[in-house]
Formats: sequence, structure tokens, C-alpha cells
Amino acid sequence: MTHMTPQEFRHLGRQAVDWIADYWETLDSLPVAPQIAPGRIRGRLPDHPPTEGQPFEALLGDLSDVIVPGLLHWQHPRFLGYFPANASGPAVLAELLSAGLGVQGMSWVTSPACTELEQHTLDWLVELLGLPDHFRSTGPGGGVIQDTASSALLVALVAALHRAGKGSVRREGVGGTQYALYISPETHSAATKAAIVAGLGEQAVRHVATRPGTQELDVAELRALITRDLDAGITPLMAVATVGTTSTGAVDPVADIGRICREHGLWLHVDAAYAGVAAVCPELRWLNDGVAQYADSYCTNPHKWLLTNFDCDTFWVADRSWLTGALTLLPEYLRNAPSESGEVTDYRNWQIPLGRRFRALKLWAVIRWYGAEGLRAHIRQGIALADRLAGWIGADERFELRAPHPLSLVCFRLRTPPDADRNEANLRLLKAVNATGSTFLTHSTIGDDVVLRMAAGGVLTEERHLREAWQCILQETEAMQGAQADARPRLP
Amino acid sequence: MTHMTPQEFRHLGRQAVDWIADYWETLDSLPVAPQIAPGRIRGRLPDHPPTEGQPFEALLGDLSDVIVPGLLHWQHPRFLGYFPANASGPAVLAELLSAGLGVQGMSWVTSPACTELEQHTLDWLVELLGLPDHFRSTGPGGGVIQDTASSALLVALVAALHRAGKGSVRREGVGGTQYALYISPETHSAATKAAIVAGLGEQAVRHVATRPGTQELDVAELRALITRDLDAGITPLMAVATVGTTSTGAVDPVADIGRICREHGLWLHVDAAYAGVAAVCPELRWLNDGVAQYADSYCTNPHKWLLTNFDCDTFWVADRSWLTGALTLLPEYLRNAPSESGEVTDYRNWQIPLGRRFRALKLWAVIRWYGAEGLRAHIRQGIALADRLAGWIGADERFELRAPHPLSLVCFRLRTPPDADRNEANLRLLKAVNATGSTFLTHSTIGDDVVLRMAAGGVLTEERHLREAWQCILQETEAMQGAQADARPRLP
Repeated sequence: MTHMTPQEFRHLGRQAVDWIADYWETLDSLPVAPQIAPGRIRGRLPDHPPTEGQPFEALLGDLSDVIVPGLLHWQHPRFLGYFPANASGPAVLAELLSAGLGVQGMSWVTSPACTELEQHTLDWLVELLGLPDHFRSTGPGGGVIQDTASSALLVALVAALHRAGKGSVRREGVGGTQYALYISPETHSAATKAAIVAGLGEQAVRHVATRPGTQELDVAELRALITRDLDAGITPLMAVATVGTTSTGAVDPVADIGRICREHGLWLHVDAAYAGVAAVCPELRWLNDGVAQYADSYCTNPHKWLLTNFDCDTFWVADRSWLTGALTLLPEYLRNAPSESGEVTDYRNWQIPLGRRFRALKLWAVIRWYGAEGLRAHIRQGIALADRLAGWIGADERFELRAPHPLSLVCFRLRTPPDADRNEANLRLLKAVNATGSTFLTHSTIGDDVVLRMAAGGVLTEERHLREAWQCILQETEAMQGAQADARPRLP
Repeated sequence: MTHMTPQEFRHLGRQAVDWIADYWETLDSLPVAPQIAPGRIRGRLPDHPPTEGQPFEALLGDLSDVIVPGLLHWQHPRFLGYFPANASGPAVLAELLSAGLGVQGMSWVTSPACTELEQHTLDWLVELLGLPDHFRSTGPGGGVIQDTASSALLVALVAALHRAGKGSVRREGVGGTQYALYISPETHSAATKAAIVAGLGEQAVRHVATRPGTQELDVAELRALITRDLDAGITPLMAVATVGTTSTGAVDPVADIGRICREHGLWLHVDAAYAGVAAVCPELRWLNDGVAQYADSYCTNPHKWLLTNFDCDTFWVADRSWLTGALTLLPEYLRNAPSESGEVTDYRNWQIPLGRRFRALKLWAVIRWYGAEGLRAHIRQGIALADRLAGWIGADERFELRAPHPLSLVCFRLRTPPDADRNEANLRLLKAVNATGSTFLTHSTIGDDVVLRMAAGGVLTEERHLREAWQCILQETEAMQGAQADARPRLP
């Protein structure tokens, strides 16, 4: 065995840094999405692991030659699918520093600065996003970094069960009571996954309809379903309100949902994974209306649109005792005086995993590099770009905008002649556009209608990239319609 | 807003790389554990986030001045607490590359190479560790990287429930049946946490006694408890066998446990978080005896002792259909042709979170940099060092070894006069040793006895560091015993 010496690390580290800078600089010339068959990448890798060590340069070479051609490039300036996965320079370097430090933040005592910087940056974020003071670590609540909004939702559900059962669920499980969880058809699938994992099953999930003509949860329907469950002897447990749904970026009426939750003792979890970070802009603080008054838990993802590379979901609870009450375990091998004093926060009791990386470092780096004004400028640019895009779409009669676009996401749809299958045409257009490699979009549905989604907000995305993407869509549309026109006479 | 340019990234990236190399080179001269009061680090951070951006150099300065003094240095050569958290050079650089690529591996289509490299490296690891062929991705099972063994245990439990309920639990929850989960008092607390999160509650957890004089699960007791549960109408669901317990590194009789599981239809999860990776050495393949025949799921942590920085828990299932059957959800916005073809693996359905980093890159980098022989040499060195240490302890009549030490962990205990509180004395010694900053140990209990734990296996740990640590223990022992001798005449 030969460990990499610090001298080699300096040398190879420069190569790795340059490799990334080169990658970012050449992204624009790469196809956004790979066009490869399953198994193609594996087919180029050796069947067996090497017996003897190999130089790091060989790995960098294979990274370029074998791996990169098999990637969907999420950092590509013309990547407009899903949501952005911002990996900014300061975040990436802080991730490197965190890996180099290699400390474990499971308990305060296992690296006090790891816990305290996390508490501190999450308190900073409370200030930056205008979240309520009771989310601060100095009050009854507190924030913690989870890997994803899915995990945040699961621990919120576990905390809700702990509260609903007055502590009995932890001992006795969920079996004695029938619980119900209220979401909308637009809520992220993570809610159903959490219900499955937490032992409630899909049967506990109520899909509250959306308000006609919108993608927002219908509060009257929520009230009706809760009443129906109460009448049936079922315990309404938790509602999920979404600020920025995955499909269209819709914002549920958090305050209205919250009032009903308060009335009936439900836990309100606010999933603001995508849109919550936009509240760094004072003009967008309305996104969090109702959170201060009603949210028992709340999360948003700096790893989507706030310049912090994955994974960094920031999660807050209004009263941390339900979360830590459900999840705290103190085996002998983790016992220590500070934990027993009650003066410190042991984040292992706020999450599923035991171990944890020093993820606060990258959030700290991002907030410091950009400053509040820089963060705001990034959000505003994403919104301005989406607005530009929506303008082009709205001005072209071949297309229709299909949802409001207050943020960085635009949903639209190709119009087709009345006799055509519009969903099929839109999916065909999506496939054709993505196959060009020039840009990458994804789709969703609004009701039964397929819509195409374009999400601005990438670190490298500028107006010219959106214009190129739009040109590509127009070209593929024309090619498709031309082919159809050509093809028609030949059909029986 | 000003994004970091590629040019700035090259420049600042060199600084970050050098910062890490400097840190590693000076670790030896730093106290291993900080001596600070809670809140001390936060007290040195600004109350409010900056409005304007700050240079990255300011962050590096604060990292050195404010953060480092508040860290427990897990990479310190004289860090011997808990288990090692290996952060090797190639792993750290691959973590950097992964952050720079910033791709999402939730579905095959969201970056095919991310999924395929993970399948491939986990198949390589099957070969390196001598795990059964049915764990390979090409068979009925398959491997996946989880963040931690805690998460692996939770998804194993969810898969076990899916199998036990013949698919009904996913829909109906765990309420209709009383399930039991069998662990030993030495099983990691993650098992109880999983039972809580999965809705079974602590009441479902059976603590099977250990075989007298050992820390290994007593198979006769397991059989008795299962029979008792069956008689009471309770469904035995799953047993956890540990290969390398957290307290002492004990190895449960996996094959014997497995036979009973098979007989009664229990899911067998093997938690080899610490010790499993040692099976890269052919002479240690016995660690996994019984896994091939009986394990339904198995995990081990390259992020502990196999040179891959946290997080990297490698988890395999014998039949992936129970796992993916329990966790698969396909909302419209994630729908894609390759997923629907059934030809690809979508790892989001193997885990709690939706999103996932490109973690296979660091495992690939480690296996390639070290080669199989390099990995073996690292494991053998950890064992040789622990053996050396055990030799010194065994030769000193003031101490007693308190558990077998086949691997890198040594458990021992200070002897005391018959009238003294031996546990208190050992905890006092631990505190005194850790307060020197010269080394860092942790403790656990064997039965009612407090034992001190020293775990070799760190990347930077050489024999001289262990000798220094041992010298420190001897000095503190003498100081303590001298103080006691001095103090005694003055006692009434």
C-alpha cells in the first residue's frame, strides 16, 4: 500500500481542480444529455478491479474518456430540466475542504465546530429568508442540514407521530391508531414514500384535490377530508403544504392550510424545497406567508437554486423536542459529558443516519462568497431569464404557457391541430429536442395534459443559452411539423 | 452577484488543496481533541450574514483560526476513538471531482454513468470481499451506496416488511400485524432507530442475550425468543447479525443465526459496517462466513476503514425486488423511457432520499489508486498495529485486555485496588488522557464494566503514534495513581 503523500496530493489536487475548471469551460460545447444505451458505460470498464495501484492520472483520463460521455450534464448552461442543481465554485471548494478535514458531526463532542457552524449558518439563513425567530437554534426550534427534502419529510412525519401519540408511538409503533396524511396530487412523491417507510402505508395518504384551474391544494377539500376521517375514527396527523411544486412551481395556501391544521391538531410540514430559497429576496418573502404562524417544520434546498452543491437541504422545526424525542438514542459508546449536560445539540438525533459530514462549511462558503446581495442577484437573474423565456413562448402562437411562472420555472405546451394527440406530440417534441444535445428539458402533467418544463437558475445559464435552447425547440418543432406535413399525403 | 470564474476557481482551488495538505502535514502537532466550552465557536462568528460578498481567502483564514481549534481531528494520526473515518487522498480528490461535476444519480437517465459506475464498483467490491455472486448487479440482487449503515438498516427493514407482508405493508402499513426484530445488546443503536422510524416501535425489538463470556449473540436464546413470539401470535420479521460490533468488534455467528432465520422465514440483515471491509484480505474472509448462504441484506462501510471518505456505506441485497418493490414511486416528472423499459437501475428506489451524489467516483478512485493489494496492506497494517498495542497492554500488569482483538480495535481496562470504583477510575483516566490532546480514545461497556477503546486503522497512524498514545496513557495513569497515593493519607 502506498498512501498519497501530501506532496502528491498538492500536485494531483491541482490537476483535479484544473480538470473541473476545464470541464466547466468546455461544457457549452458538450451535448447536454448523452445518447447511449444501457450498459454502454459499464462495457468500457474492466471486469475486474486492479490488483496493483494505478496512477491518479489514469483515473482522470478515464473520467474524461469513459465517464463524461455518459453523463447528463446538470451544470451545463443549457441544462433546463428538473430543477437546477447549483454547484458554485465556493461550494465545491468547501466540499473539498470538508472532505479533507474528514470530521464527523454526529454529536457536538465529535467536532464542536461542525455542529456550531451548522447552527450558526442555519440561523443566518433564518434571517436571510425571513423565517420566524422560533426556528432559530436559540429558541425552542432549530435548523439542521438533511441530505434531501425526502429525508426531511420523513423525520417531520416521525416527529409528528411522536407528538400525536404523546410519545407512545416511539415505544408502541403506529399500529394502535389509524393516521392520515394530507397532501395534494402536486405534492412531491417523497410524501408517499415517507408514509410507506414510516409504516403508515399508502392507505394513510389523502390526495386533497387542487383548486379548479390551479395546482394549489384546495383548502375546502382538505377540511372536508379531515372531517370525514374524524367521523371514521381516523386521526388526522399531518398536512404537507408545498411552496413551489415540482411539476409547475405552484404555491399552496400555507396560511389557510395552517389554520385548519391548528384547529385539528395536525402537524404542518412546509416543503419549500425548490422555491423557499427565493425568499432571500425581500420582494419574494410572500412565498413564506403563513410559515411563521403555522409551520411545525419547513425545508428548502440550497442545493437546488441557492448555489450550494448537493446535498444540502435545510430543515427547521418550530419545537425540536418532538424530533429529538422521537429519535434520540444514547448507546454507551456515544455517551459523553456535554451530551448529558443538555447544553449541546447532537445532530444525530435530528436525522436518520448516525454519521454526518461537515456540510455547513459549504453553506457558510456560499453565504460569505456571495453575500446576501449576491444571493438575491442570483435568484433575480433566474426569474428574469424565465420571464424572458415566457415572453418568447407567449409571443409564439404555436405554443401556450400552461402555468403561472413567478419564479424560474416555465411550463408550456405545443399546440396541435384538433385531430392530433397533443400529449404525444409534446412528448415527441421533448424527445427530439433532448436528442439534439443542444438543450435538455423535462416534462410533467397538469391534469391530463403533458407540459414541457424549462427551469432557469443554473450557475452558468445566461440569456444567450436560453435563446439557443428556444431556437432548438423552434427548429425541432418545425422539423416535426414539416415531417408531418410531408407524411400526411402518404397516409391512407 | 459575481460567480467564481474558472480562472478564480483554479487559483483558489490550489489554495484549498494546499490548505488541506498543510492541515494533514501539521495535524501531528495539533491537540487531537479541542478543549472548549459549548458556544465558544459560535461566539467567534458574526451574528449576521454579510450583505456583500467576501473573498475566499477570508474563509480560509477563519477556517484555520476559528473552526480548526473547534474540531476533533478524526484524521489525526493519534485519533484512536470510535472507529477510523478514513479520508485518503484519492477519495478526497474524487469527492472534489464529484462536486465539480454536480450530477444527480437519482435515475439512470439523470446520468447513466453515475449509476453504471456505482453498479460496477459494487460488483468489484463483491469480488474483492468474497461476497456471493447473487449480490452482483447482474444477478437477482445488487449493491448500492447508502450514506450510512443506519440508513441501510432502515431500508433493509422496509424491504423485510414488504416481503413478510407479501406486498401488503406498502399499502396498508404495519398496523395489522405484530412484528418482532431480533438484535443483541451489542447491536448498533441504528437497529432500534430503524424500528422506531419504520413504525414498529421499540416494543418490537427483542434483545437476544449474548453467549456467556462473549459479546456474540446467543443462538439458543434467539431460537427461544422466536418460539415465544410465534406462540404469542407475533411475526418474527428480521434478525440483525453484526460482523464487528461497535463496542468491541465482536462477530456474531452469522451462519447459525442465518439457519434459524431461514427456518422461520426471517429476513437476515448482516451489519458489517466496521469489519466487513477487512475481508479484502483472503485470510479474513471468515468474517463473512454464512453471508453467502443466509444474508438477505448486508452492508459494510468503506468510509470507516477502507480509505473512502464519508459518506460511503456499501449495501447489498440478495433479491432486489423486495427493496424496490417497497420503495418504487414514479411520478410523472420522473417518468422516462429507460425506466419504463425495465432495463436500467434507478437507485432512487433503493434508498430514502430521492437525489444522490456521484459517490461511486470516490470508491472507484480508492480501488484504482490502491489496487487490491494496497487495500489489503492497509487492513493488515491496522491489524498489526492493534496487535502491537495489545501486546503492550497485555505486558503491563496495571491493565487488562477485555475482549478479543482480531482486527484493529483493542478494548482494555485499568485494574484498580479491590476497594476502588473501577468504572469511575477508567472514565477518569479516559478524561485525563483526552484532555492532554496527545491522543483521543473512547469508551464502551462490556456487561457492567467500562472499557477503553483504541481503534487503529487511520490513514496517517503509524506505530510511533500508537507508542506515543500508549505513553500518554501510562503517564496519566501514573499521575492519577500518584495523586491518589498522595491524597489517601489525607482522607479520613
